[in-house]
Amino acid sequence: MAYDTNNVFAKILRGELPKVAVYEDEHTLAFMDIMPQTPGHVVVIPKEAAEDMMDLSPEGAARLMQTTQKIAKAAKKALEASAVTLVQRSGRDAGQTVFHVHFNVMPHYPGVPLKLHAQAMVDPKTLVPVAEKIRSAL
Amino acid sequence: MAYDTNNVFAKILRGELPKVAVYEDEHTLAFMDIMPQTPGHVVVIPKEAAEDMMDLSPEGAARLMQTTQKIAKAAKKALEASAVTLVQRSGRDAGQTVFHVHFNVMPHYPGVPLKLHAQAMVDPKTLVPVAEKIRSAL
Repeated sequence: MAYDTNNVFAKILRGELPKVAVYEDEHTLAFMDIMPQTPGHVVVIPKEAAEDMMDLSPEGAARLMQTTQKIAKAAKKALEASAVTLVQRSGRDAGQTVFHVHFNVMPHYPGVPLKLHAQAMVDPKTLVPVAEKIRSAL
Repeated sequence: MAYDTNNVFAKILRGELPKVAVYEDEHTLAFMDIMPQTPGHVVVIPKEAAEDMMDLSPEGAARLMQTTQKIAKAAKKALEASAVTLVQRSGRDAGQTVFHVHFNVMPHYPGVPLKLHAQAMVDPKTLVPVAEKIRSAL
């Protein structure tokens, strides 16, 4: 499948859709998931146009992981999470819904199960203070 | 928590426990999961002693991701999978059961749901031909 330049994350990268930003550098961008499975759910993407992990360059994969790790550490610390799961879905049968490669950073809290993937949208305003907390721990 | 040098993956790295190997280089090792959630479930680990993603060096994280990507591509191709999910669990509340940082590479097949995490052990012999298939696509 060819990369669709009109996918939601491509639009976010071009500034055509809003985001609650957490981190940005030359190669990667991290922002709050608006359908969070857990408080502090962050999406990390490369700026490289790649549909999934199969299409991403090895250099892009390395940089994506380094930013993902940075966010995971900051989110865990800032939100006093007890654990973090990283999930990367490559392909529709893996549950991928946006076809620009991305990592989900999902903090865990004792006794709080994750919500289902891509189910309920929240008001982005509620994510702003969470993003600020995570940024402050970067 | 301090790194426990007697965790199962540390023992596999030292050759004290057997593995069905898929790939090895200077910094990383990939082998078949003996409690597979899906046919072709591979575990990828760094040789660096790190309990979870928080402890792993950024260079180690980059290399771990590059091997993980390599395995994901080979597994998808070799096993004619339609999609691949990568999961990294850091911490007990994330479901981590072996405390040496690892990525799960889980191929998907149309209409076949993933099994539950870390439930049923299989005979390692049954994993040998699957590992061979993946290796041949590397």
